[in-house]
Amino acid sequence: MVKVGIVGGTGYTGVELLRLLAAHPEVELALITSRSEAGLPVAEMFPNLRGHVDLAFSAPDAAALAACDVVFFATPNGVAMQSVPELLESGVKVIDLAADFRLKDADEWAQWYGQPHACPELLGEAVYGLPEVNRAAIKQARLIANPGCYPTAVQLGLLPLLEAGLVDAGRLVADCKSGVSGAGRKASVATLLCETSESFKAYAVPGHRHLPEIRQGLNRTIGGEVGLTFVPHLTPMLRGIHATLYANLSNAATKTDLQALFQQRYADEPFVDVLPAGSHPETRSVKGANTCRIAIHRPQGGDTLVVLSVIDNLVKGAAGQAVQNMNILCGLPETAGLEGIALVP
Amino acid sequence: MVKVGIVGGTGYTGVELLRLLAAHPEVELALITSRSEAGLPVAEMFPNLRGHVDLAFSAPDAAALAACDVVFFATPNGVAMQSVPELLESGVKVIDLAADFRLKDADEWAQWYGQPHACPELLGEAVYGLPEVNRAAIKQARLIANPGCYPTAVQLGLLPLLEAGLVDAGRLVADCKSGVSGAGRKASVATLLCETSESFKAYAVPGHRHLPEIRQGLNRTIGGEVGLTFVPHLTPMLRGIHATLYANLSNAATKTDLQALFQQRYADEPFVDVLPAGSHPETRSVKGANTCRIAIHRPQGGDTLVVLSVIDNLVKGAAGQAVQNMNILCGLPETAGLEGIALVP
Amino acid sequence: MVKVGIVGGTGYTGVELLRLLAAHPEVELALITSRSEAGLPVAEMFPNLRGHVDLAFSAPDAAALAACDVVFFATPNGVAMQSVPELLESGVKVIDLAADFRLKDADEWAQWYGQPHACPELLGEAVYGLPEVNRAAIKQARLIANPGCYPTAVQLGLLPLLEAGLVDAGRLVADCKSGVSGAGRKASVATLLCETSESFKAYAVPGHRHLPEIRQGLNRTIGGEVGLTFVPHLTPMLRGIHATLYANLSNAATKTDLQALFQQRYADEPFVDVLPAGSHPETRSVKGANTCRIAIHRPQGGDTLVVLSVIDNLVKGAAGQAVQNMNILCGLPETAGLEGIALVP
Amino acid sequence: MVKVGIVGGTGYTGVELLRLLAAHPEVELALITSRSEAGLPVAEMFPNLRGHVDLAFSAPDAAALAACDVVFFATPNGVAMQSVPELLESGVKVIDLAADFRLKDADEWAQWYGQPHACPELLGEAVYGLPEVNRAAIKQARLIANPGCYPTAVQLGLLPLLEAGLVDAGRLVADCKSGVSGAGRKASVATLLCETSESFKAYAVPGHRHLPEIRQGLNRTIGGEVGLTFVPHLTPMLRGIHATLYANLSNAATKTDLQALFQQRYADEPFVDVLPAGSHPETRSVKGANTCRIAIHRPQGGDTLVVLSVIDNLVKGAAGQAVQNMNILCGLPETAGLEGIALVP
Repeated sequence: MVKVGIVGGTGYTGVELLRLLAAHPEVELALITSRSEAGLPVAEMFPNLRGHVDLAFSAPDAAALAACDVVFFATPNGVAMQSVPELLESGVKVIDLAADFRLKDADEWAQWYGQPHACPELLGEAVYGLPEVNRAAIKQARLIANPGCYPTAVQLGLLPLLEAGLVDAGRLVADCKSGVSGAGRKASVATLLCETSESFKAYAVPGHRHLPEIRQGLNRTIGGEVGLTFVPHLTPMLRGIHATLYANLSNAATKTDLQALFQQRYADEPFVDVLPAGSHPETRSVKGANTCRIAIHRPQGGDTLVVLSVIDNLVKGAAGQAVQNMNILCGLPETAGLEGIALVP
Repeated sequence: MVKVGIVGGTGYTGVELLRLLAAHPEVELALITSRSEAGLPVAEMFPNLRGHVDLAFSAPDAAALAACDVVFFATPNGVAMQSVPELLESGVKVIDLAADFRLKDADEWAQWYGQPHACPELLGEAVYGLPEVNRAAIKQARLIANPGCYPTAVQLGLLPLLEAGLVDAGRLVADCKSGVSGAGRKASVATLLCETSESFKAYAVPGHRHLPEIRQGLNRTIGGEVGLTFVPHLTPMLRGIHATLYANLSNAATKTDLQALFQQRYADEPFVDVLPAGSHPETRSVKGANTCRIAIHRPQGGDTLVVLSVIDNLVKGAAGQAVQNMNILCGLPETAGLEGIALVP
Repeated sequence: MVKVGIVGGTGYTGVELLRLLAAHPEVELALITSRSEAGLPVAEMFPNLRGHVDLAFSAPDAAALAACDVVFFATPNGVAMQSVPELLESGVKVIDLAADFRLKDADEWAQWYGQPHACPELLGEAVYGLPEVNRAAIKQARLIANPGCYPTAVQLGLLPLLEAGLVDAGRLVADCKSGVSGAGRKASVATLLCETSESFKAYAVPGHRHLPEIRQGLNRTIGGEVGLTFVPHLTPMLRGIHATLYANLSNAATKTDLQALFQQRYADEPFVDVLPAGSHPETRSVKGANTCRIAIHRPQGGDTLVVLSVIDNLVKGAAGQAVQNMNILCGLPETAGLEGIALVP
Repeated sequence: MVKVGIVGGTGYTGVELLRLLAAHPEVELALITSRSEAGLPVAEMFPNLRGHVDLAFSAPDAAALAACDVVFFATPNGVAMQSVPELLESGVKVIDLAADFRLKDADEWAQWYGQPHACPELLGEAVYGLPEVNRAAIKQARLIANPGCYPTAVQLGLLPLLEAGLVDAGRLVADCKSGVSGAGRKASVATLLCETSESFKAYAVPGHRHLPEIRQGLNRTIGGEVGLTFVPHLTPMLRGIHATLYANLSNAATKTDLQALFQQRYADEPFVDVLPAGSHPETRSVKGANTCRIAIHRPQGGDTLVVLSVIDNLVKGAAGQAVQNMNILCGLPETAGLEGIALVP
């Protein structure tokens, strides 16, 4: 059994992580800390966990965390980096679901997150936890930067094309739509039901924090600089991300069997499902599941390729991917605890 | 392994049954029949099942069904009764998720369902599959009438009071609210998103088919005739039933610890959760789970008791309860395949 | 033209009041004050008002308010009572959309609202602004207490029965369902989309602030004390209240034509619509409109009457009724500015 | 008063047209025909119209329609073209809300709509009813082809750029999201609440009928052939279209004040609102209103321009624009009957 601790965990990523870990056959959930909620039984905050999670939130306790095999941080950005160095020294493996270790460049991190990085020396070591790209490195890692939700959906949709050099990497468009749970569980007018239901809007068009993360991943793939326009939108639903990706095909690409390319790229991936040609994936087909479903289209046989990529932002886009990383890290079967089927309707 | 067949299964009860059975550790899903969809891979109709269910719908085939241990009917009302007698004769156990065997009185059935019953001789034998009442009989049954969704929520909320004789059984009110999935998956204007979203209404106030079913269950409990006003409402959400139950307490009852009464009644029930005093259960706390959560209130200390009872209409109100019945029937642990945690948010 | 001022107005009641007043043919919108938003153009906060409302929020200014004919308070409970006495002295008529003047008993007010009342001497004078009951008094009033949303739906549904003495007033049940906008526009976890969408729950079952208000209105009608159980529920939609009302008919009542009774009672009311026998009103049929639609049922011809009453909580349950009161108060046609048709779908 | 007839009108476009025309100060609603619903009071099908529309649906009657000044067709595609020639001959002006007269090329029409056109000789005469482009022609027209919903949002968003020649017209992307009401009011599994709520998907990526319509409008603007990738998506809400448009700026454009360009282009348009720089329009800001709100962005100062354009698909995208066309056609003030403010929340 893997002894697991969670720091934070009062948000939507947290409750989803608890749902997955409580049912994981190889996990012993040892503690979950929350400064603000210390003493409160977890199942009182999240009644869906009644009968499944008996823990109460506890005050942060370095020794108790140090006694874990793996510690997940489900905290706001900027929290994990304060205590990760100490935890690593005590031999614990860390998976950060926030953004603290996602960018390699400390200056860029500081610019997008509005504060200096507390341990820039770890940015190089941290492994970006996208198993479909970094599985070998994850196996050896001490510190995993769990990818953002948009970056997961966008990178999985574009990687086969960029790896094969089949599209104009200088002019990519990622038009992304997210359910409201992506905005987190905090008191706020902007994400009230009465502000977000029955409406749809783009946000952060001038620049969203996931932009540098996506760019970094795509740049690494091509060994150069991509040109990417990324527009996120808020969608009136709880869960789900739909990335609609546009890329201009090179001449070579127009003769390539792109459906086969995607199927081969992901043939051995347990959590990426390339749909038959002509499909339109629905976000609900992955609701609660750790799956990314992808379909590709070339409308009217032109030279613009359209890739449709859907995930559940709280699962493959957060907690599920974190558990997948833990499984790899700990030598467990990669799908352990992640075989739940999406809930439809 | 229990060899299972499903008749029907293209509706919401069907896809939920498939979700549960595909993950059930003791079940071999042998076949699923659908006259209209024969040949179609199940996962093509329900992409959430891709990678989990490899079957295609097959044309109805008596011999193949007769080779199963258990057959579930997830068909419209009036279908199961046509073929159940033959199946029973071949030694198969049958669980009907529709209403064909729920009422004991063939005339009453005919009146509410608008057709004569095809095998009234089986109505006496059929066991009403509410395990919290009929567990012993279910164990021995050949034919289970799986309860309706409203009847499950209402009966579980009222039983402790009626069993203890603490309320005026002649004047009960069940004000019930259901998500739209209760109306099924069929082409219809009335349940379009544009007809049901952002609106709330009562329906079938003059008389709903679940009324005689609830009455029959409550009558049996008190050994007499209850007086019940049942008003169902359509709620703009996918899943969930919330029953708000009103009963007038007898004088004796006003001195009884009703919270303790409920807790004791359900202490050994794996799927009934009595919440702490003062609670307000949310339907989402059981979304996707086979749990009924109940809270009781006595506003301002008066003599009207308010019971709040929530279930997922597709799980404890249909497919989950059917699997629970199968577990009991087949001598499996009652919770096998039913330990999934509700999805929040 | 009636010169109108608004105090508050940054909430949902406020934006709805602005929508109605901006289109009102006899109103000059003179100022809208908000301490926290002073200087901000109203249409910047509420872009739906772009091109219709050119005002900016201004800091509270007693003189400017005193120059109005009518001032609406769309403020949190407890604010209006601080400045209403002074305004009344300067000759302004006041309509309070909050609860400050709804209860006649200052002690009861203090108990339910958790603070002493600032001007109990005005509670007697304040007219409860339910035009269907108090039209004559409203005409003469200086100070109107605009009714709460639940109280409007419940009272309009029960009044004809209580006035005619046809039901057991000692045992009334009001099972009410409200859209989330009733909870207001303030930063809060409890009313996030991710906490309220796809879920349904009762709340405040032990006691809701609208209970004494409803009781007071019903008591006044019968000249005695009613017994009322009131259970409000939170419904996953923006707008709308559905009250399902249960009452036991007296013997006399079972021989009365109750449909005719309701139709006669409301025959001259421009904003109460009694539906044909057998109807089930939908909340969307009044979305954005100042109408209360009512249907009555007597299931299975028994002695329990079921009344279904729907309103838009922000219109007939708040801003629309406030404008109706203003129209009466100012001698304008009662329907002026209130003839908008409900938006379906 | 303009004497108006409606053919069809049992769909969402129909009920919205009725809502607008019933409140229009210069319209006499003379008749509304529906073969299937003849005899049914309109307000029985659409209770929101109770008290506002007293008509019943009537059987189609050529003489009665011929006595109207203007006839709207709110019928499925392919219906209007059967009777429009006869109506025009009798001197009636016709506004078709369906697609029958939107394309100039009869062969292209036949290809996309799957049937030969019944009166190709009228395609040349029909005026495409986008007032912001064709106001002068509309004034003189006998026959108006009311634009589709997506085409309205996309063209209004791209026109200023194409007219000014500032973008690469060969590589435009229109990523569009629509509420479910765009799919119409007909019995169908695909648009049930349980199929569309809490999910998001693209559809018709290989080719949607609005593609040739948009292309035709843009081609006309540049006097050439645009290259356009158009991807529509189904969004879990009732009303609203959000078009996210991507265009590559020419070198010249990077020095142009694009915000000023848009503001000047639409300065005199009563129903196009260019938002301040940096804005993100919400679809709810136009819910129920005949307005298109537009914002433009140039992320990170690059050469990709992002235009955000929102409308209510049933108003500016259908019934509202039809009334606007009627106003122009009949010499009424263009905004008559169209000054309703969007309903928020």
